[in-house]
Amino acid sequence: MDIPKTPSGFDAAELSALLDGRWAGVRAEVREALAGLDLSPGDDLDTEAHRARTLEQLGMVARSGAIDYGFPAEHGGGGDVGGSVVALEMLPGNLSLMVKSGVQWGLFGGAVVALGTERHHERYLHDIMRLELPGCFAMTESGHGSDVQSLRTTATYDPDAGEFVVHTPHEAARKEYIGNAARDGRMAVVFAQLITGGKGHGVHALMVPLRDAEGRPMPGVHIEDTGRKAGLNGVDNGRITFDRVRVPREALLNRYGDVEPDGTYRSPIAGANKRFFTMLGTLIRGRIAVSGTAGGATKLALEIALRYGDTRRQFPRPGTDEEAVLLDYRGHQRKLLPALARTFALHFAQEDLVSTLHDVQGGGDERAQRALESRAAGLKALSTWHATATIQACREACGGAGYIAENQLAGLKADTDVFTTFEGDNTVLLQLVAKGLLTGYKDQFGDLSPLGMVRFVADRFVGAVAERTAARSLVQRLIAAAPGKDDEDVIFDRGWQLAMFDDREKHVLDGLGRRLRGAGSDDAFEVFNNAQDHVLHAARVHVERSVLESFVAAIDRCRDRDVAAVLERLCDLFALSAIEQDRGWFLEHERITPRRSKSITAAVNALCGALRPHAVELVTAFGVPRQWLTAPIATGAEERRQREMREHDTAPPTE
Amino acid sequence: MDIPKTPSGFDAAELSALLDGRWAGVRAEVREALAGLDLSPGDDLDTEAHRARTLEQLGMVARSGAIDYGFPAEHGGGGDVGGSVVALEMLPGNLSLMVKSGVQWGLFGGAVVALGTERHHERYLHDIMRLELPGCFAMTESGHGSDVQSLRTTATYDPDAGEFVVHTPHEAARKEYIGNAARDGRMAVVFAQLITGGKGHGVHALMVPLRDAEGRPMPGVHIEDTGRKAGLNGVDNGRITFDRVRVPREALLNRYGDVEPDGTYRSPIAGANKRFFTMLGTLIRGRIAVSGTAGGATKLALEIALRYGDTRRQFPRPGTDEEAVLLDYRGHQRKLLPALARTFALHFAQEDLVSTLHDVQGGGDERAQRALESRAAGLKALSTWHATATIQACREACGGAGYIAENQLAGLKADTDVFTTFEGDNTVLLQLVAKGLLTGYKDQFGDLSPLGMVRFVADRFVGAVAERTAARSLVQRLIAAAPGKDDEDVIFDRGWQLAMFDDREKHVLDGLGRRLRGAGSDDAFEVFNNAQDHVLHAARVHVERSVLESFVAAIDRCRDRDVAAVLERLCDLFALSAIEQDRGWFLEHERITPRRSKSITAAVNALCGALRPHAVELVTAFGVPRQWLTAPIATGAEERRQREMREHDTAPPTE
Repeated sequence: MDIPKTPSGFDAAELSALLDGRWAGVRAEVREALAGLDLSPGDDLDTEAHRARTLEQLGMVARSGAIDYGFPAEHGGGGDVGGSVVALEMLPGNLSLMVKSGVQWGLFGGAVVALGTERHHERYLHDIMRLELPGCFAMTESGHGSDVQSLRTTATYDPDAGEFVVHTPHEAARKEYIGNAARDGRMAVVFAQLITGGKGHGVHALMVPLRDAEGRPMPGVHIEDTGRKAGLNGVDNGRITFDRVRVPREALLNRYGDVEPDGTYRSPIAGANKRFFTMLGTLIRGRIAVSGTAGGATKLALEIALRYGDTRRQFPRPGTDEEAVLLDYRGHQRKLLPALARTFALHFAQEDLVSTLHDVQGGGDERAQRALESRAAGLKALSTWHATATIQACREACGGAGYIAENQLAGLKADTDVFTTFEGDNTVLLQLVAKGLLTGYKDQFGDLSPLGMVRFVADRFVGAVAERTAARSLVQRLIAAAPGKDDEDVIFDRGWQLAMFDDREKHVLDGLGRRLRGAGSDDAFEVFNNAQDHVLHAARVHVERSVLESFVAAIDRCRDRDVAAVLERLCDLFALSAIEQDRGWFLEHERITPRRSKSITAAVNALCGALRPHAVELVTAFGVPRQWLTAPIATGAEERRQREMREHDTAPPTE
Repeated sequence: MDIPKTPSGFDAAELSALLDGRWAGVRAEVREALAGLDLSPGDDLDTEAHRARTLEQLGMVARSGAIDYGFPAEHGGGGDVGGSVVALEMLPGNLSLMVKSGVQWGLFGGAVVALGTERHHERYLHDIMRLELPGCFAMTESGHGSDVQSLRTTATYDPDAGEFVVHTPHEAARKEYIGNAARDGRMAVVFAQLITGGKGHGVHALMVPLRDAEGRPMPGVHIEDTGRKAGLNGVDNGRITFDRVRVPREALLNRYGDVEPDGTYRSPIAGANKRFFTMLGTLIRGRIAVSGTAGGATKLALEIALRYGDTRRQFPRPGTDEEAVLLDYRGHQRKLLPALARTFALHFAQEDLVSTLHDVQGGGDERAQRALESRAAGLKALSTWHATATIQACREACGGAGYIAENQLAGLKADTDVFTTFEGDNTVLLQLVAKGLLTGYKDQFGDLSPLGMVRFVADRFVGAVAERTAARSLVQRLIAAAPGKDDEDVIFDRGWQLAMFDDREKHVLDGLGRRLRGAGSDDAFEVFNNAQDHVLHAARVHVERSVLESFVAAIDRCRDRDVAAVLERLCDLFALSAIEQDRGWFLEHERITPRRSKSITAAVNALCGALRPHAVELVTAFGVPRQWLTAPIATGAEERRQREMREHDTAPPTE
């Protein structure tokens, strides 16, 4: 198959600059700030030593100045929300350190910034930034993880004492899996049902001391160790139970709701439901950081696997006296190169998302805020599943060598595995995205009655209409310019690809609406539940469409002709391999003919072949800090062995 | 959608008996022999302590009598090859122990049995069974893993001394990743290029002492520790280098080739290539054991996830005052139940494979032996990929709880991960299977010229024609009875399903043959390589067809009506979810209409709903020994929490 021209080379620095993007400055600063530090992961240590080392490294990061981007300038921070997310991506080689950083400065510190007011900022932020106050984000409970609105910890106001009583009524209400709790946390932002005067006002957050200055648990605070995990064992997760622990009234993080000394509750937001989701919305940065760090880990894994695949040889190559290089095998390319293309796509989508976060959050535009939350949920799901699948593929592509700890893939796999279910379970998140789309659908097409049903998710999420990316006008132009569908090479036309993604999204959503409306039952759970695979598909194709648009917009920003051309081929590979993967749907709905479907598979193969010579250079352009690339298989061991073999080898004699 | 009737209940003991199958006696014996032993995994220990505990447990297993099935009766073994594979499946809860058992008795002991002669059996087997001689299977080298025929270690005969000189000429020839090497192995079966009188006779195996009675390495033997791995850290893998190590002439495992005192080489098999593959063929049991143990691990993981999913609740269920049970969500069923159905299918296919191994091996029927090797390769690939995907799905289905070590999924995931690339890399194995099919194709349709190309794999594998399972006549009858293709409910007809699998296999293979024949290039590598995705698909659909046939045959053996009926639904779910997964192909080749494709998806959903009430009972019927089910989430912790919550809970008050 003939594919559009791929340049024979390109300016790697230009590509890196494009990838570094809007926060290029932050990336450069953090690379430099971390470069001299010994941040090597402690996966080979026992749990306690690993935790100790991670805490020590956390201190080094704190002192490096690489972490304060997200804190308000008036309290000594960088005042750069986007930068704080980008900075966290730069730690992919030590994910315990990354997650512990995320807990301390993103979740704990971030909650104090977002939900607290000046009195909390003044008192705590300096110490949090300096790691003088290690803290926890105590939201999840044993009984409620995804369904945070149903938490059971209570914070009951006692007007006589002017205090809140924080209490765990039963084991299911125990705070579970709380990072920094088992060993280091001195204080926690505790999420609890706020009760005053016998009335409940929904989940609020309070500052609760966990340990005294000597590290002993405070009276009434019981802490258990979560113990060994599949990975991230440098993070000390724990379980916390509160036995009628008293904190002063001022401990309430009172930006969205406050209790007066006499017990009167006041909030700028009427309705516990809306208030709850507004509060959650301010914490969206954590979820966005997870997509970013998943991306960082994916890039590092791909760089290891591609460098090894570009070197390692196996089986004689007929017609030569050499063995074939792994990455010359089509099957090997198939394992890694579509994943590389998708990693580029997700990188640009993440950059757009971080930009939106940076520009929108706190701006008071509720509709934009809802759209941000929907995008954050969707991208988090796709990015983390992509990380899991890609790192797995990288491991297998490196054979047994990929299983040895020193080659890093074992750690990357184990540490990132939880990303698909923490900071929002991916399946739950995609349902939220779909719910937002259905709400938009309802706005456009009228009630989906008997769709009171949708409320079973709806109550938990203020829907966002199908949001449109900034690239929309460019996209519309490309779609309008797409040639007729019967043209032979149309599959390489960006407008055609965009139209396919666009049309799929509309049609899946439309079909879902019709299906829900036409359901014969009035059991809301049953109707919605029976369509759950359809719901999840709707969300997925929606997110994929916006990811493709981000890729297209990024290429449009590129001013270097060769770099743009190689990105065009990567974008082809992303778009066509995505269509190939979902070709069952495209064929079922007669969006492509069987013949075109086969030509798409041929195109994916041809694109893999065309991009293969650039693979290592492409993945290197992401600029993963060099200190993280330590795997012997990716840093010369294999080359050295082969050189030595060429020098000393004589093929065994024959009979 | 209406699906055929699913019984409201069934006799679990009947199902268990069917699943226990031909080696029910071995399964019962091993369950009993292991029941009282403390075989709990040592994943929480540091590497050295973990290894020590695993060795100690290996001794307990040796003394239990659960391991000697595979050794000849005349040397005190059970003389039951099939039983030896089945016995190994019973250790899924401690995979380091399982793999170390496999190394000691399957690979090391098995090689002595298969490649040695009476002098070796007499001298070594007793000590190997009793663990008085811990040993290694030293095949893989740093430079050659998949391509074993190109190993570079040499064993050069010195007629003056009557000794072989075993030597590692350069680092790429170092023995790599050898189980039992870093700590415990006293002796190794070393695979090396045999050279005598200046001529090479291909790879042969020799008994080489590694350590003396005090555990010190023998002169000239250098051993390094492979170090931490992603999992299986109870197994002491190491790297071995030989510096002109001398062993007596009798150390050669001489069943397929021997050297006389004067250096004359003799072999019953002419041709180094054929001899090599014959020798490898006798070691096929190890590969078959890997499919079996992958199955054991998958069953345990599914039991944990299904028990938790059957208990855990999240989000209020509208119209009730309860929260919904996870396994009632269609998305949750979709994650686990098609995987459960496939686990049944693979279980029966494995049983058939073990039976074939037991009946065929050593019988001298070369064609049957080649067919066995092809099936072993294909089933190993599908079983281990299924294990990786299913255990991952189980982990995610249990959310954060699945990530905590005590809930076992972390260990199962980490330990089984290497299964996809050890004992034959899955991608390489599927190529071998495809090559066998192409050889058959060539026999039927004439030369695929310019297919000298296929020789680039062909040289390494004597092809097997598309082998047919024992169930073939039953299958033909069912296919012949299948109704016309336009019938509405035809998708539930077993004959139709079988015909779909059968037809797909023929058509994919036929297309591949035409594609290779029609290729415009005479670069054999390029032609074959460009079609590699097609090659791998051909192998995969071939194996899937035979797996379905095994399932069908098992149901045919079942005499209990309700058990048979529930298995029929599981078989529907396996067959239809497999078609759904590959519906891109079926639609591209107009084997199903878009309408039927959608109805298959609807049927998969409906089957998930129908089987959901039986899920826990079904998975329990596999009879995974109870000692391995220790995960708190699967053994009552969640029920207890919910009971306590029901007793003490008051929903938070509202505003």
